Amino acid sequence: MLNFLSDTVTLPTQEMMDAIQHAMLGDDVYGQDQTVNELERLAANMLGMEAACFMPSGTMANLASIMAHCPRGSKVLVGNESDIYIYEAGGASVCGGIVYEPIPTQADGRLLLHDLAKAFPFDEEDPQFALPSLICLENTHNRCGGKVLPIAYLQEVKEFAAERNVPVHMDGARIFNAAVALDLDVREIARYADSVQFCLSKGLSAPIGSIAAGTQSHINKVRKIRKMLGGGMRQAGIAAAPGIIALHTMVARLDQDHRHAKQLADGLARINGIELDVQQVQTNIVIFRVTDPRYSWDSFLQTAKSRGVIFSEMGYGRIRAVVHRHITTDDINRAVQLVEEMMKKGPF
Amino acid sequence: MLNFLSDTVTLPTQEMMDAIQHAMLGDDVYGQDQTVNELERLAANMLGMEAACFMPSGTMANLASIMAHCPRGSKVLVGNESDIYIYEAGGASVCGGIVYEPIPTQADGRLLLHDLAKAFPFDEEDPQFALPSLICLENTHNRCGGKVLPIAYLQEVKEFAAERNVPVHMDGARIFNAAVALDLDVREIARYADSVQFCLSKGLSAPIGSIAAGTQSHINKVRKIRKMLGGGMRQAGIAAAPGIIALHTMVARLDQDHRHAKQLADGLARINGIELDVQQVQTNIVIFRVTDPRYSWDSFLQTAKSRGVIFSEMGYGRIRAVVHRHITTDDINRAVQLVEEMMKKGPF
Amino acid sequence: MLNFLSDTVTLPTQEMMDAIQHAMLGDDVYGQDQTVNELERLAANMLGMEAACFMPSGTMANLASIMAHCPRGSKVLVGNESDIYIYEAGGASVCGGIVYEPIPTQADGRLLLHDLAKAFPFDEEDPQFALPSLICLENTHNRCGGKVLPIAYLQEVKEFAAERNVPVHMDGARIFNAAVALDLDVREIARYADSVQFCLSKGLSAPIGSIAAGTQSHINKVRKIRKMLGGGMRQAGIAAAPGIIALHTMVARLDQDHRHAKQLADGLARINGIELDVQQVQTNIVIFRVTDPRYSWDSFLQTAKSRGVIFSEMGYGRIRAVVHRHITTDDINRAVQLVEEMMKKGPF
Amino acid sequence: MLNFLSDTVTLPTQEMMDAIQHAMLGDDVYGQDQTVNELERLAANMLGMEAACFMPSGTMANLASIMAHCPRGSKVLVGNESDIYIYEAGGASVCGGIVYEPIPTQADGRLLLHDLAKAFPFDEEDPQFALPSLICLENTHNRCGGKVLPIAYLQEVKEFAAERNVPVHMDGARIFNAAVALDLDVREIARYADSVQFCLSKGLSAPIGSIAAGTQSHINKVRKIRKMLGGGMRQAGIAAAPGIIALHTMVARLDQDHRHAKQLADGLARINGIELDVQQVQTNIVIFRVTDPRYSWDSFLQTAKSRGVIFSEMGYGRIRAVVHRHITTDDINRAVQLVEEMMKKGPF
Repeated sequence: MLNFLSDTVTLPTQEMMDAIQHAMLGDDVYGQDQTVNELERLAANMLGMEAACFMPSGTMANLASIMAHCPRGSKVLVGNESDIYIYEAGGASVCGGIVYEPIPTQADGRLLLHDLAKAFPFDEEDPQFALPSLICLENTHNRCGGKVLPIAYLQEVKEFAAERNVPVHMDGARIFNAAVALDLDVREIARYADSVQFCLSKGLSAPIGSIAAGTQSHINKVRKIRKMLGGGMRQAGIAAAPGIIALHTMVARLDQDHRHAKQLADGLARINGIELDVQQVQTNIVIFRVTDPRYSWDSFLQTAKSRGVIFSEMGYGRIRAVVHRHITTDDINRAVQLVEEMMKKGPF
Repeated sequence: MLNFLSDTVTLPTQEMMDAIQHAMLGDDVYGQDQTVNELERLAANMLGMEAACFMPSGTMANLASIMAHCPRGSKVLVGNESDIYIYEAGGASVCGGIVYEPIPTQADGRLLLHDLAKAFPFDEEDPQFALPSLICLENTHNRCGGKVLPIAYLQEVKEFAAERNVPVHMDGARIFNAAVALDLDVREIARYADSVQFCLSKGLSAPIGSIAAGTQSHINKVRKIRKMLGGGMRQAGIAAAPGIIALHTMVARLDQDHRHAKQLADGLARINGIELDVQQVQTNIVIFRVTDPRYSWDSFLQTAKSRGVIFSEMGYGRIRAVVHRHITTDDINRAVQLVEEMMKKGPF
Repeated sequence: MLNFLSDTVTLPTQEMMDAIQHAMLGDDVYGQDQTVNELERLAANMLGMEAACFMPSGTMANLASIMAHCPRGSKVLVGNESDIYIYEAGGASVCGGIVYEPIPTQADGRLLLHDLAKAFPFDEEDPQFALPSLICLENTHNRCGGKVLPIAYLQEVKEFAAERNVPVHMDGARIFNAAVALDLDVREIARYADSVQFCLSKGLSAPIGSIAAGTQSHINKVRKIRKMLGGGMRQAGIAAAPGIIALHTMVARLDQDHRHAKQLADGLARINGIELDVQQVQTNIVIFRVTDPRYSWDSFLQTAKSRGVIFSEMGYGRIRAVVHRHITTDDINRAVQLVEEMMKKGPF
Repeated sequence: MLNFLSDTVTLPTQEMMDAIQHAMLGDDVYGQDQTVNELERLAANMLGMEAACFMPSGTMANLASIMAHCPRGSKVLVGNESDIYIYEAGGASVCGGIVYEPIPTQADGRLLLHDLAKAFPFDEEDPQFALPSLICLENTHNRCGGKVLPIAYLQEVKEFAAERNVPVHMDGARIFNAAVALDLDVREIARYADSVQFCLSKGLSAPIGSIAAGTQSHINKVRKIRKMLGGGMRQAGIAAAPGIIALHTMVARLDQDHRHAKQLADGLARINGIELDVQQVQTNIVIFRVTDPRYSWDSFLQTAKSRGVIFSEMGYGRIRAVVHRHITTDDINRAVQLVEEMMKKGPF
């Protein structure tokens, strides 16, 4: 199977598995797992932030971050195409009594300042309005096809937010893909956010976990909320150890995924019946559409899967292919070949 | 002062005040206020619904209705320009753990089936998604300028919702304006909703209160939620009594408000510096813009107020004038005259 | 019917009904109902507090006060026999994400400092614990039989709370009964609380409403929460006007209810088969038990009702009789006579 | 250090570490981690339940189970000394809008039916009351000193609950300790509950995780809630693999912990200045008090720690020692010796 479903399917490397064997373990609920502590220091340091907290998932890292920022009854401004809004089951409303205000997402993943501004009522004293207490950005942006938010834009949002006295949270599940694509230290991205979450379990290939980072006082709140949500794990070092390896060894290689993604895009773009703008591919995600009238997006996915290639759907019939460590240059060629064949023969 | 702020400013009629004096009162928390009971029966009957519950406000009527329909963690689909989404402080997320999904609102107040459909995920079993459990319509539609939803559209939404196994709630704060505008029995509108709320305190001129209506079992739930929210009032008959008079005497006269609104629209539309499409005025609300570059919407409102006419802003710089029982034909003329003068002279 | 069900059944006086007729009304959601504004000023002033907010019910006054004090995920300490804990449908958990910690209630309505102290964890940093953010007292205490909390006790709790940096909210639904019983200005009671709610609709005989009072900034929060819960009412002056009369004319006469309650207690205490300690009766509530083995509490209530006297049950088989403005000295005599007869004859 | 802090400090065995190396991994969010799937089948099977779900912690297993059972606004009945009520940060109120009703806990961990019954109001239709929707038991009971609930009692509660139409959830964090102590198949305990959670990370020594089990439809709900809370982990097999070994190899050996606990209790009970009833020790938890007036519980803990033995406090000054796999017979002797010495010399 060629699995382009997601970079979450990546398996740990042998080095990660070895690290598990040698990890110093302790009870992390009491702060006594040295491996977790090391991962948290390392992650905070890499991001240039004061503190970090290891979480079982990106969903919880986002949820706890949002709850730490937003009081009950306030609004979190999120992209209408953001993973937080679409794929995280509404946790902030359920667990936090927080209102999601989805802001139109531009094709490049940006939320326009003009649109964000509309969420702030003219009269903040008017009790009719839930008031914004947080702006969330997603970087890279999944449903926009792995788009990297420009630094200048991040700066603008930070200034906009500061003027309005609200913090910025970055859902940086794939922030290292952004850093690699921009050839920048990830600190240069994280500095425009008050808090960041990123996933160890996507392109970085660790088996479990995400990091929430921010100021010390923010992370203190996050840690309390993590316990309440049930994210306090005991000898969590077995999950943190591969995370440390991931941060040390897996960041630079994301560049290869990006090159593979471009190769895949180039290949697919040349096929009749596939609509794909190669200019849009910036990181490890390729989005395209099937225009061949013999296929629905659904039958396209089914046929491809039956022939050994797994893609997924990203809303509105868009097909997503995510490139990751287990996808080789040959795999890309085979995938392109298969789709070509599918477009020639039609469904079968 | 000519007060076009809202039809909520209407004062009770003398007949209403007399009704208060003669109301049979009791403790409504124990179900023993006969006047409240009578109002609830009357309202349910007028709407053609099984049961109704008297509420201190439209906000609570909507909130309790939504909470009765939607389990924690599900989604309520609301128009992005709806009063429920914009002016009710996010209550369903706070009190219900419910996610608002704002759906684009058409200029005529409709939510397109095509847009509603997108809120239902392809795979309902996927735990990533909060699932829709209710569709809310607003009729007449406030921020769209008092638009009446067409009966054929209501029918389509009802069928669409039934196929997807979700109920329809109608925020009919001004449902009687819709009925009068269509010259239909209000039952012919309410029948396309599973639950309805309407306000006694807007054009109908009662001082306090709204009605939530629906099936008996729905209203039983609403009543429990009302108690929890703090909407259980004791000798509520003093507020219900004018409500009964409102339903008996104030519905038919809404037609006069509609004619006045058209008169106002016609007058304003002829003024240079005012942009207004008279075709859009269907009920008692007139929406226009000030295009005269010497005015911002804000300075327009200030100047008008200082000259004795109160309008309000409806988002994006749109100005709203609401016509109601205290606005006479002469008042309309004076208001038009004033705006005309303001456009001639500029701010002063 | 002799109705000892509750003092909530009291009907407005003629003076109150007249006040409704002459009330200056406006749209209170815009702060323009002068009668409401007057009532709020009067109530705040009487309590010696900065600000007050008119609410549709005591339930909402308590709920909004608690939500204004307590962040999501914190604990409100309430008596296990308090109305807030037992009769208000869990609103603080539902709408506020707040944990109720019920504290044992002494027979005289007090929560011991020793018991309150146990709710504060030794290690406040330990994320396992929800932390207390508010202490609620009830005065007079309903289920303890209308007990008045001693001033010295209020002072102790205030000091205890101040040391722990949490505010005190007083559910003073019947705070004027406490003031009259102690022959003190109500300010002398309210000063030991950071916020107070009291009911206009109980012994004070107004038809609708309660007051939440506190500092200006607290009441600003309460007002926002009131809107979200749906307690913003339009021409609320029709309910506020009798409230003003209630505060001017109904406080002093509570003393009569207290004397009647003692008379009732004296009469009942002499009956075989009734267990009642007359020393416990301090205000307008009389609690007793039926020890006659021929009656359950339920059959006692049924029989009494069938003979024209309504009592209620207060948990654990205790019977409650509430004395109020509609109960005369003769009524008391008749009620005692009936119970005497019931005890002689047994159920019939 | 002799660490009696908790059995959560247990480290994985070598066999567990080996199992991690050879685990078949996949993305469990897509249900494709075979190791997780195997653990879930195994756990369900051992408990005699239809289905099970792997969770990052016992806190989340309890929280998701409660949320799956209890609608918003209902009550969960929990022991006032239960871990769910005391140590889980109020999650059910925060995330579920559920009211905790703490029921007095007997010294042996039982909640009396008589006390549970009081939580069900006489009139379920009365909207004042939040209604019970779940009864939670804890078995073994932590703060009662590892007490095992008798089978006859479990049966009584099940019947009581069935009559009232509410399910029973068992917080069986240490359910295998109960089974071993009773020398019964754990199924014979689990059968009296509708849902069970147990910890792999306590006496069973796995590094991470707990199991929530119940009917298939219940577990489907739990799984959705797990995703929302952020408990969906990717290659969770690295945590599930040691869990499988734990279930295969660690259950029987709990008996040794129980014998060690008795040995510890016997030793401590003989020391002057220690109050301990050896009859109360049923499993791996020993609770005692320091009666020597030279020590507070706090100074006792500090001194012991400085001398190399870690105990913890369990509320009200009770000291807890938890025995687990890393505590040998010799360790017990050394700990007893140390406490003896401490009682002789006083604080130092």
